[in-house]
Amino acid sequence: MIPQWIIEQKRDGQELDERDIRAFIDGYASGEIPDYQMSALAMAIYFQGMTAEETGVLTDAMMRSGQIIDTSAIDKPKADKHSTGGIGDKVSLILAPLVACCGVAVPMISGRGLGITGGTLDKMESIPGYRCDLSESEFVDVIAECGCSIIGQTEKIAPADKKFYALRDVTATVPSIPLITASIMSKKLAEGIDALVLDVKHGGGAFMKNPEDARRLAESLVDTGKKMGKKVVALLTDMNEPLGRAVGNSVEVGEAIECLRGEGPRDLMDIVMKLSGQMLILTEVADSEEEALAKLEDALESGRAYEKFRRMVESQGGDPAAIDDPSQLPQAEIESRLEAESDGVVAAVDAEKIGKAALELGSGRVKTSDDVDHAVGISAIVKSGTRVSRGDALAVLHANDADRLEDARATLNEAFLVAENPLAPGNLIGEIVQ
Amino acid sequence: MIPQWIIEQKRDGQELDERDIRAFIDGYASGEIPDYQMSALAMAIYFQGMTAEETGVLTDAMMRSGQIIDTSAIDKPKADKHSTGGIGDKVSLILAPLVACCGVAVPMISGRGLGITGGTLDKMESIPGYRCDLSESEFVDVIAECGCSIIGQTEKIAPADKKFYALRDVTATVPSIPLITASIMSKKLAEGIDALVLDVKHGGGAFMKNPEDARRLAESLVDTGKKMGKKVVALLTDMNEPLGRAVGNSVEVGEAIECLRGEGPRDLMDIVMKLSGQMLILTEVADSEEEALAKLEDALESGRAYEKFRRMVESQGGDPAAIDDPSQLPQAEIESRLEAESDGVVAAVDAEKIGKAALELGSGRVKTSDDVDHAVGISAIVKSGTRVSRGDALAVLHANDADRLEDARATLNEAFLVAENPLAPGNLIGEIVQ
Repeated sequence: MIPQWIIEQKRDGQELDERDIRAFIDGYASGEIPDYQMSALAMAIYFQGMTAEETGVLTDAMMRSGQIIDTSAIDKPKADKHSTGGIGDKVSLILAPLVACCGVAVPMISGRGLGITGGTLDKMESIPGYRCDLSESEFVDVIAECGCSIIGQTEKIAPADKKFYALRDVTATVPSIPLITASIMSKKLAEGIDALVLDVKHGGGAFMKNPEDARRLAESLVDTGKKMGKKVVALLTDMNEPLGRAVGNSVEVGEAIECLRGEGPRDLMDIVMKLSGQMLILTEVADSEEEALAKLEDALESGRAYEKFRRMVESQGGDPAAIDDPSQLPQAEIESRLEAESDGVVAAVDAEKIGKAALELGSGRVKTSDDVDHAVGISAIVKSGTRVSRGDALAVLHANDADRLEDARATLNEAFLVAENPLAPGNLIGEIVQ
Repeated sequence: MIPQWIIEQKRDGQELDERDIRAFIDGYASGEIPDYQMSALAMAIYFQGMTAEETGVLTDAMMRSGQIIDTSAIDKPKADKHSTGGIGDKVSLILAPLVACCGVAVPMISGRGLGITGGTLDKMESIPGYRCDLSESEFVDVIAECGCSIIGQTEKIAPADKKFYALRDVTATVPSIPLITASIMSKKLAEGIDALVLDVKHGGGAFMKNPEDARRLAESLVDTGKKMGKKVVALLTDMNEPLGRAVGNSVEVGEAIECLRGEGPRDLMDIVMKLSGQMLILTEVADSEEEALAKLEDALESGRAYEKFRRMVESQGGDPAAIDDPSQLPQAEIESRLEAESDGVVAAVDAEKIGKAALELGSGRVKTSDDVDHAVGISAIVKSGTRVSRGDALAVLHANDADRLEDARATLNEAFLVAENPLAPGNLIGEIVQ
């Protein structure tokens, strides 16, 4: 295998052989193929694309660059959910224990935030003592005991993806549907799951700006999952407005706890229920959306989902007192209201600007090596359609630095459009790709 | 400057700023920008191209990554010739002393062969003792004394190009007109010349397979040279049949000596005279092609060009006895005739196959780190249009290894088309791009 010949084939728009794709990825993972050949291939793929067949092989090769979690000791169907990322997306924290209550094991390997997009791991690490770095056997033990576990990508899960993702980030080769597909699916299918539900977001606060691109990505993800013998569906969802009322780490954990207590905001709970329902249907724990919803509502209203989350946190070293009393989660020093400057209706809440304001407060990362401040963020974000009077709070900023607070306040102020009349509401949840 | 943003701009088809191109090349030359970002940019340029403006800046930035030879001590116009490479192209060896005889200094920095294409340095190093690795001051001294010097690219000439070319070779990013332009022109214009004549070849034995691609490259080279304040013209020439009758290293030096003695084959001398004439016109040493030709013929017929070559060789440590008696050049152990299998007319001689046969004998390199065998090659290659009888020699192979000889003989046998009637001859020299 001569790497430059493979790059040349893709450059010229040819379909690559399975053998060549595997040899390239294996060579890259082992260090035989240098970064500069991988980045040239990535750019050629950016321009020429890949067939569904090629994408499937690429995904499989990246998955097999590491271990596949052995979940065979867990005698339940196994399923997971993956979101392409958005603002205020704390769905995983609620969904994992909720679905686990219904007899489906949820082995969830999550990521960290980057740019304006938050990450599940950063949120979970707001909980004092919570460990995301379990070994494979600890991970399986927690799932066996609690039905779910949320951890971070280990060195052993799809190492080729880990290396390749870092390279794509610095070579302008991130926005390529086959490469995004292989990156997501190689990690998710290494979890040893039977079924996967994807939340593919579009809009200002999402990676995909329009529904058409989101649909193309959803189709690629679903096709690839099916090629690899898994049950997969994708939901297209809107990410022009943040999900729920809180954006940050501690504040989002707080909101997830509210949801698990049955007090969550409507938009967030709608998405949680829809995605969770698909997981029950795919694993044949429910035959219909109605049946799934009934099971999920029972798990929530009985308090079992809350207990499940509390138990998972405790099993992973987290302090359950912080779940029972979220004021024990990290708190920022300064709390500051952003007030409406006029009477009217909140016509739009810009997810991208809210994400940017949270990033300015220090809740996220500009580059992967940055530290996050778990305590800062934005809470009590009003939802569009809400009637407000001058002086009402549009949101509350939680800051640890006065300069950062001022920057974030200026950005946040641009996020709210207060008008005389509300805009016609869009659909939060769009089509299902299956 | 964030390198991935520049890559992204080019990926998206935008024109890059002068400042960004210079920062990228400077960063690459200094090692701050890693190979993997350079190769991603190169692939983006492959797909999106560059404007004439961008190509000019890229060329200038690569040239300025190193030194520009200070030829100010030489009180003559300075000019050089560059060929995009072909089979049997020993033009430089004849042209440099010939033009030098007419009052134009020729500071020639040449390259080595790769693949089927030969290199001037490999040919010159056939001459026992000849040094291609002169220092800048030695180079200028030889030019001052002899009027011309042929050396190799030093570490100080366009180091960014040296590094980038090696990278392009292994990342399938060689065939890009702006990148080829910047590579050629950054090195040539670092020679401290006023004028440059380009021989852009097309056909089976050339890098550019068709005249249209060659014209596009010629236009890019000429535009870029003019942007950099130099007088530049390009000739489009045919490289479907090898130039002259010899292909290899020693055998080509032998043929160049014949040319300098006035006994060269017609096709080769036509190109030498045409390119040399353009150099005299560009430097205003001659006002017309006729005047240039008269000067060149006088330099040749008087023996001055031969003496000039002999003196240059001697000044660079070469043995002049090998010029006076080419049998003192390295000789291969085995000489073997390839004979015509039938009576007829040689209708075509395939340059690419002849180049491949010479490579198989060991005259060239498959990869840059290979050694070449100066003694091997092919001589007495019949020209198309020649009437042959069964058993006549079509060419003579010079080999140092019986196995290699058999491989080369099989390839060489396919190079000659002997037919009942000759084909209509094409034009060796096509249009001038200026």
